[in-house]
Amino acid sequence: MKFSLDEALPILTRTPMVLRHLLEDLPDTWVRGTEGPDTWSAFDIVGHLIHGERTDWITRTEILLTRGESLAFTPFDRFAQFEASGGKTLGELLDTFAEARAISLQRLQSLGLTGDDLDRRGLHPELGPVTLGELLATWVAHDLSHLAQIARVMGRQYTEAVGPWLAYLPMLKRPGGA
Amino acid sequence: MKFSLDEALPILTRTPMVLRHLLEDLPDTWVRGTEGPDTWSAFDIVGHLIHGERTDWITRTEILLTRGESLAFTPFDRFAQFEASGGKTLGELLDTFAEARAISLQRLQSLGLTGDDLDRRGLHPELGPVTLGELLATWVAHDLSHLAQIARVMGRQYTEAVGPWLAYLPMLKRPGGA
Repeated sequence: MKFSLDEALPILTRTPMVLRHLLEDLPDTWVRGTEGPDTWSAFDIVGHLIHGERTDWITRTEILLTRGESLAFTPFDRFAQFEASGGKTLGELLDTFAEARAISLQRLQSLGLTGDDLDRRGLHPELGPVTLGELLATWVAHDLSHLAQIARVMGRQYTEAVGPWLAYLPMLKRPGGA
Repeated sequence: MKFSLDEALPILTRTPMVLRHLLEDLPDTWVRGTEGPDTWSAFDIVGHLIHGERTDWITRTEILLTRGESLAFTPFDRFAQFEASGGKTLGELLDTFAEARAISLQRLQSLGLTGDDLDRRGLHPELGPVTLGELLATWVAHDLSHLAQIARVMGRQYTEAVGPWLAYLPMLKRPGGA
């Protein structure tokens, strides 16, 4: 499936509401449970998504469009949420994510991108040259990856509770990676 | 995390709305895309969830409570959705799933289960003796597994489109299992 803005925007637009319906007001056992030491809870993942809105996707899009390959993107801090989410409730994080995503999408729309722009190139600090289409496709895939991760982390809270059915639920057995 | 009805019910209650917000009115490329031959699309998975409501979870609960280990559950047909969903739209499947889940939860509530009931035992045709708590935990974990699967199948539609970012998105690379 080739990237297209028309197909990507519905996913990016929906993610905050999907997460709200999945997570809001759930017992903490679901929201704060992890997959073990040094793994993330649903709460941590929502914080990570907020950080992406604030520092990654649209910021990189604007750098790519204005600077091309002359300025590498700032590396993304994958652990920023542990400090930034401290003392917050999940409800607050869900609100913050919804607001931040709405702002990102307004900025994206205001760029008036065309299909031709998708081939424009920027410079990733580790990956090297990348196109705008690849950056925007990654934004979508990142949402979906973390939605899958949240569902997996939640499901794995029941790895013991399902008893012998574990044999039919491979997702609950495998450590790490969605 | 030990199974408890109070923690399980919010998940079972929300799944239809989560799927509606994730999937309704999306372009077919998201909804009908699979992970390759003999793998399921989001559309197929919603059909599978409907079949579970109609023939598996609450039906098995009632058999367990009335027959104990004297009658094995009917084996679950994991491919029934391919015929049952034929000619339907995704919107129709989402409506059907929401209605079927609401009925299942009414039937569950009407049983007036207590914590003690969770240790009662039934007979799975392949797995042998199982408890009611294990069956109900599996219902929850099955929802979450298939939500993760849907997000993964959708994300993998962009395995090519993300270009070099694939290196940071392990979910898009691994074939099968969430």
